Amino acid sequence: MIPRYARAEMAEIWSQDTKYRIWFDIEAHAATAMAKLGIVPEDAAKTIRQEGDRAIFDARRIDEIERTTKHDVIAFLTHLAELIGPEARFVHQGLTSSDILDTTLSVQLVRATDLLDKGLDRVLTALEARAFEHKMTPTVGRSHGIHAEPLTFGIKLAGYFAEFRRAKDRLAAAREEIAVCALSGAVGTFANVDPSVEAYVAEQLGLAPEPVSTQIIPRDRHAAYFATLAVIASSVERLATEIRHLQRTEVREAEEFFSAGQKGSSAMPHKRNPVLTENLTGLARLVRMAVIPALENVALWHERDISHSSVERGIAPDTTIHLDFALHRLAGVVENLVVYDDAMAANLARLGGLVHSQRVLLALTQAGISREDAYEMVQRNAMKVWKDGGTLLDCLCTDPQVTAALSRDALEPLFDISYHTKHVDTIFDRVFGRH
Amino acid sequence: MIPRYARAEMAEIWSQDTKYRIWFDIEAHAATAMAKLGIVPEDAAKTIRQEGDRAIFDARRIDEIERTTKHDVIAFLTHLAELIGPEARFVHQGLTSSDILDTTLSVQLVRATDLLDKGLDRVLTALEARAFEHKMTPTVGRSHGIHAEPLTFGIKLAGYFAEFRRAKDRLAAAREEIAVCALSGAVGTFANVDPSVEAYVAEQLGLAPEPVSTQIIPRDRHAAYFATLAVIASSVERLATEIRHLQRTEVREAEEFFSAGQKGSSAMPHKRNPVLTENLTGLARLVRMAVIPALENVALWHERDISHSSVERGIAPDTTIHLDFALHRLAGVVENLVVYDDAMAANLARLGGLVHSQRVLLALTQAGISREDAYEMVQRNAMKVWKDGGTLLDCLCTDPQVTAALSRDALEPLFDISYHTKHVDTIFDRVFGRH
Amino acid sequence: MIPRYARAEMAEIWSQDTKYRIWFDIEAHAATAMAKLGIVPEDAAKTIRQEGDRAIFDARRIDEIERTTKHDVIAFLTHLAELIGPEARFVHQGLTSSDILDTTLSVQLVRATDLLDKGLDRVLTALEARAFEHKMTPTVGRSHGIHAEPLTFGIKLAGYFAEFRRAKDRLAAAREEIAVCALSGAVGTFANVDPSVEAYVAEQLGLAPEPVSTQIIPRDRHAAYFATLAVIASSVERLATEIRHLQRTEVREAEEFFSAGQKGSSAMPHKRNPVLTENLTGLARLVRMAVIPALENVALWHERDISHSSVERGIAPDTTIHLDFALHRLAGVVENLVVYDDAMAANLARLGGLVHSQRVLLALTQAGISREDAYEMVQRNAMKVWKDGGTLLDCLCTDPQVTAALSRDALEPLFDISYHTKHVDTIFDRVFGRH
Amino acid sequence: MIPRYARAEMAEIWSQDTKYRIWFDIEAHAATAMAKLGIVPEDAAKTIRQEGDRAIFDARRIDEIERTTKHDVIAFLTHLAELIGPEARFVHQGLTSSDILDTTLSVQLVRATDLLDKGLDRVLTALEARAFEHKMTPTVGRSHGIHAEPLTFGIKLAGYFAEFRRAKDRLAAAREEIAVCALSGAVGTFANVDPSVEAYVAEQLGLAPEPVSTQIIPRDRHAAYFATLAVIASSVERLATEIRHLQRTEVREAEEFFSAGQKGSSAMPHKRNPVLTENLTGLARLVRMAVIPALENVALWHERDISHSSVERGIAPDTTIHLDFALHRLAGVVENLVVYDDAMAANLARLGGLVHSQRVLLALTQAGISREDAYEMVQRNAMKVWKDGGTLLDCLCTDPQVTAALSRDALEPLFDISYHTKHVDTIFDRVFGRH
Repeated sequence: MIPRYARAEMAEIWSQDTKYRIWFDIEAHAATAMAKLGIVPEDAAKTIRQEGDRAIFDARRIDEIERTTKHDVIAFLTHLAELIGPEARFVHQGLTSSDILDTTLSVQLVRATDLLDKGLDRVLTALEARAFEHKMTPTVGRSHGIHAEPLTFGIKLAGYFAEFRRAKDRLAAAREEIAVCALSGAVGTFANVDPSVEAYVAEQLGLAPEPVSTQIIPRDRHAAYFATLAVIASSVERLATEIRHLQRTEVREAEEFFSAGQKGSSAMPHKRNPVLTENLTGLARLVRMAVIPALENVALWHERDISHSSVERGIAPDTTIHLDFALHRLAGVVENLVVYDDAMAANLARLGGLVHSQRVLLALTQAGISREDAYEMVQRNAMKVWKDGGTLLDCLCTDPQVTAALSRDALEPLFDISYHTKHVDTIFDRVFGRH
Repeated sequence: MIPRYARAEMAEIWSQDTKYRIWFDIEAHAATAMAKLGIVPEDAAKTIRQEGDRAIFDARRIDEIERTTKHDVIAFLTHLAELIGPEARFVHQGLTSSDILDTTLSVQLVRATDLLDKGLDRVLTALEARAFEHKMTPTVGRSHGIHAEPLTFGIKLAGYFAEFRRAKDRLAAAREEIAVCALSGAVGTFANVDPSVEAYVAEQLGLAPEPVSTQIIPRDRHAAYFATLAVIASSVERLATEIRHLQRTEVREAEEFFSAGQKGSSAMPHKRNPVLTENLTGLARLVRMAVIPALENVALWHERDISHSSVERGIAPDTTIHLDFALHRLAGVVENLVVYDDAMAANLARLGGLVHSQRVLLALTQAGISREDAYEMVQRNAMKVWKDGGTLLDCLCTDPQVTAALSRDALEPLFDISYHTKHVDTIFDRVFGRH
Repeated sequence: MIPRYARAEMAEIWSQDTKYRIWFDIEAHAATAMAKLGIVPEDAAKTIRQEGDRAIFDARRIDEIERTTKHDVIAFLTHLAELIGPEARFVHQGLTSSDILDTTLSVQLVRATDLLDKGLDRVLTALEARAFEHKMTPTVGRSHGIHAEPLTFGIKLAGYFAEFRRAKDRLAAAREEIAVCALSGAVGTFANVDPSVEAYVAEQLGLAPEPVSTQIIPRDRHAAYFATLAVIASSVERLATEIRHLQRTEVREAEEFFSAGQKGSSAMPHKRNPVLTENLTGLARLVRMAVIPALENVALWHERDISHSSVERGIAPDTTIHLDFALHRLAGVVENLVVYDDAMAANLARLGGLVHSQRVLLALTQAGISREDAYEMVQRNAMKVWKDGGTLLDCLCTDPQVTAALSRDALEPLFDISYHTKHVDTIFDRVFGRH
Repeated sequence: MIPRYARAEMAEIWSQDTKYRIWFDIEAHAATAMAKLGIVPEDAAKTIRQEGDRAIFDARRIDEIERTTKHDVIAFLTHLAELIGPEARFVHQGLTSSDILDTTLSVQLVRATDLLDKGLDRVLTALEARAFEHKMTPTVGRSHGIHAEPLTFGIKLAGYFAEFRRAKDRLAAAREEIAVCALSGAVGTFANVDPSVEAYVAEQLGLAPEPVSTQIIPRDRHAAYFATLAVIASSVERLATEIRHLQRTEVREAEEFFSAGQKGSSAMPHKRNPVLTENLTGLARLVRMAVIPALENVALWHERDISHSSVERGIAPDTTIHLDFALHRLAGVVENLVVYDDAMAANLARLGGLVHSQRVLLALTQAGISREDAYEMVQRNAMKVWKDGGTLLDCLCTDPQVTAALSRDALEPLFDISYHTKHVDTIFDRVFGRH
């Protein structure tokens, strides 16, 4: 976890204190459930809950014990026994450490996911507001980095909105993947812990019981989870890349907000760089890299091996923390994005009307000329404009083969931008349910 | 695509013939829809459909044209014009090649997904049958490769069944991701093609219209799709790895079917190797590797760049073909798996009852001994067994601190395998809905 | 392997015919070496060589045998016996199939590497020629996509040259990694094959003997190899990305050659897209994706498992073929790149001299002003130019705090492009050893 | 960075204090070099060096300044000015922040690499010692997890030694890749900083000057570096996997050292798990995952974008720290590995001599039987042993077709283990240069 790319609220989920608190909570819930079954004395369960709730877990003491036991959960339980006293022998009855660790990871991932969902909401809100603001702002559409045809900046943003709306659905599905609880004992047989204990703890934690665990919650769930985060990170990268392109000097249709006192370069005082979106591009790479080890974690040996553990100690906090940060940074960029309508208009006009070439092509075919011939006629005039400047309309009007099919009067109306914006409302209805 | 890992039915989906046929189908559907709008003459639409349906597309001729145009869709359209005649000028009206290419990819991926789903069904059927067959076959559960506690081979298989059942749900979601149609023109504005054309074509092809496309269907969809295939491949690897472990010489609890005439090694005639499951492990790697380029494909520039195209020419066929093959190979392995119940029993007995150590620990805590002391008492006796052999029960009975708490009569019943199988029905109910 | 991204010369290396021919060659060389040791009769070794050299291996027959044996090398040896007759029993004496397969892979990878090296040479030659051609062509340097300071187009190309020169060194090291031969028998003990046989075969094939193999050549070698190809592919992507940027409509400083008859879009006849470099970007992703499975192939079980085999059947041909194609495509792009010097000059002038802001900053500090104050003075004037246009020089000259330190006469010479090109020769000497 | 997988010595390299100290060092060296050129007054350069050497950099103050400037190097320089006074205006003359940042990263990576090299040395020393200790300890070689032929445990370890020896060579090459210094100014032209300054600083820091940088040191170098670390991590995984296999209950030929007080499981007191090598398997995944973002970092835009920065803030410390920890953990595992020679012998005997099947096959072919027939004869007897137990020798002696070719007297000597160890010295000579 890179501190500069962490929001406190998310980092807190992954703190050692939070972890110990959840560990205890699961043990205490389990004791309560076992008390109902008569396996643990009622009083013992109450003592465990009360003493644990008021206890302050001492990470240094736990580390000290772990240096002997070489087992972190046992170290915690030993420390807990120091705090609770003799009733502590009823803690962890029939459970295995994976029951605690995996269910804790589920609780943490669920909380993290709920924060990520809020981050997505902020991105969506920002995109929707700016999309409506620029619903009819004409701008050039580019394929291959080359001017293609006009669209509006609002349509552009609507596309990103739709993509992040899909991200929200995917995240909801990913949450369901990992919102599971397993308290099934050493190899998942419930030999030493009744299924009702699992059911009770799951309910208290807002999780679903894992239908069949081995010793652990199967890691295909976590692989699916991290894969989803990787896809969302890639969407962050796409929008970040768009803004980086729009800000480049020659385009300059939009710009990240540049605050008073900000400095763009230690050497060149004139610089105003899209550093936030470049940073988001890098963060996307960091989030994405977790997908491979998460996939490699699936094929654990037999009922479990512990190779996944070190991986998850890294990627679970890092990936959720960095994506959370990225979503809020992205939302901020969109909220504060400086949009230059005039530059958009100027760029749109830059190619002398070449962006209308398709419409001319279609008009020629409608006028009876074959697709192949019409293409050739428009292309040769377009190439002149590329080479010598001027406008496509003028070029076409001096091409007798063209004018034989379409007069200047017929050609002129083909160069009308409103032709390209007639379905903006349709698109907004599809995306936002309103226009 | 590696021919030896391809089933004909899946490979066919990705053949050039299939591709050209879908290209034509989309163009013909679009022409029909445009005829309804009066943009294309009714007769022309009919001619296009009829002539195209009977035409045989000549890949060599198309390649020849492409060498000049350097554009594959234009080459196809030119060839189509040669076959259809003058009415061909109404083909592709207002469409852009991405409309054709992306919708075609959707059609192919949907077909591929439906085949993959059949593969999953075959795996599930095999796992369910073998799980019930071995529902009560005792075997040892292993964590870290070390004997842990008993379970049944049926529970093991139930766990894999549940995992592949999740794979089926994920595949269904992935199918929805890519079952979309876009016919929205050059930059997605519907300037030159009415949204109703898209709606009509989508319906004919069993796809949903993309709410907002740029020039292309956004690639977060495909990233999510290939990520899902990667997760499924990892589940294949997990089951394959399990079988490889079970077949290793020292374990030999199960074995891939070895057919008459089969040879395991060119050098060593005694060899019977788990080559199918090793192969599945490799295929899983091949399928998984597509996830990174699929993620890298998301952040295309502006309304599109074509960098995704070469990637998808590789990973779309390769990944679906190899996973399809892997699923059927895996199903075959499970169907024909030779299971050695007696070896399972022998292995289970190998450690002199150490696998019951937890139950003794719990009985000691129930008898009033602290968790820490009880652990130490059982551990020291277990270590003796590891070192010198013998049985845990005998060792415990000679440890006065143990016998002070539990007599041999109290200890003996703790070494009972049925204790570990009492919830098999519960687990089967959860997984299969029956037991 | 995607046929449209394959050059025949490279594809041939990976053909079935080539593979069988190398298999035979190794067997024949081994027989010759064994004849020297008296293990194989001299005449038998000669017969094997002669009959094999004139034989045509029938892939269909081999496949047919493999359907029974389920082992490809045994199938080949059986077919070979059909062609050679009874002396065939001296073929493969003491060898294991991995001896043949792994050494064959080495031969193929070495040949592939030598072709890749030629591809790199072609790229280097093109870059050097164009670098000298544009050694003094001024262009703007950009950091973060924002104009920074001037450099020359020649320096840009020199940077790429240096990078591909490093690629050549890395490729040479990678070649050494995999240019090894192992004929050490079933588990690498030379129990059934004398080390001198390995030495002889290695020498014939131009390979080094593997110091210690298990049954196989260790896969860390291949992982290092494919990782190197991935790095080279990333360098391809960097140059491709540069050209894509230079060609975008608003920049248009350079352009891929657009041939007569070429069509950029099926819909828009005006389009001239950087499709070759976009394609290279995609190919880079394809080549890179092999690095993960190659790394996953390293940790084979014990003396070997065969999970690497299916992976290598995919990535070995695909990765070398696609990278080879990419290098030649890239070389072609560089050779034919259309460079617009005038556009470079125009872009360089676009920001009204902001690109000289650092030099002003330094002059102010030299004039006794603190770095922080000087920065602030230049920045505020630069921001005016960003906002209102005009030139930085004019702005500075109206800022009394600036002019108190530096007069217009002192400021003017700071806006001189030759200041930025004074070390071009130094850089060229470093990179090319000449200028 | 996961604290539990960090050694202090390596973590220190990546501390904020170390970073600021190197930043200062580069600035001070540059000032000294500039003083020689007369650009900076001699006294100023001395003051900078002296004041900076005694200063304590206050991270909190730097952070505070960065909140305004949004630029970390500028924040540091501003803080430095507070500490040094007016002479500070001569700091960073003509440099750009990348000059500082990239060269600092080189210094850190070089230091980290030197530590990694020590880690490799410790692994190599341990492997060599244990290899000679077990040079002649017979053990079974396994391919596909199935018993193949005998070898010695020393040969096994020699193989790993050779692999880590290659790792050392690769690491040396990787060190050379990143041991470069760039002080070339804003876009690498040396416009504002003389090449001699770079040369001087490079020499002071033990780095080579980058022949041509843009604003930054090109990232193909770092990609090659992290790829190398990924390959080394995969070798760690291979050895870790071997030990995990050897320790599994049914094999138990070797075992990680289990210390007094250690606990294997919170639930099952009998457990002794290979948790260190499983952990190494996970750490290998963590190290490897850096290779993809490092490759994605190569194609920065134009003269640089800053997307690589956040990636490297993560992977540079994390990857070197985790690999360093892994190497030392691995060395410890090898040093303390408990080897059970008797279990190796018992396992080797387990299959009733099947491991000698090849030698019988070869003897039959030498006796005039065709390879195909000989194979069939040995295979059918081997299959009997697999099925019914007994020994291969006995089976062969009751097979008249076999005994027609080879009598029991001829067969018996074929089952001799020393046949398989006759080249151990050769192999040791190749690997260690001695035996």
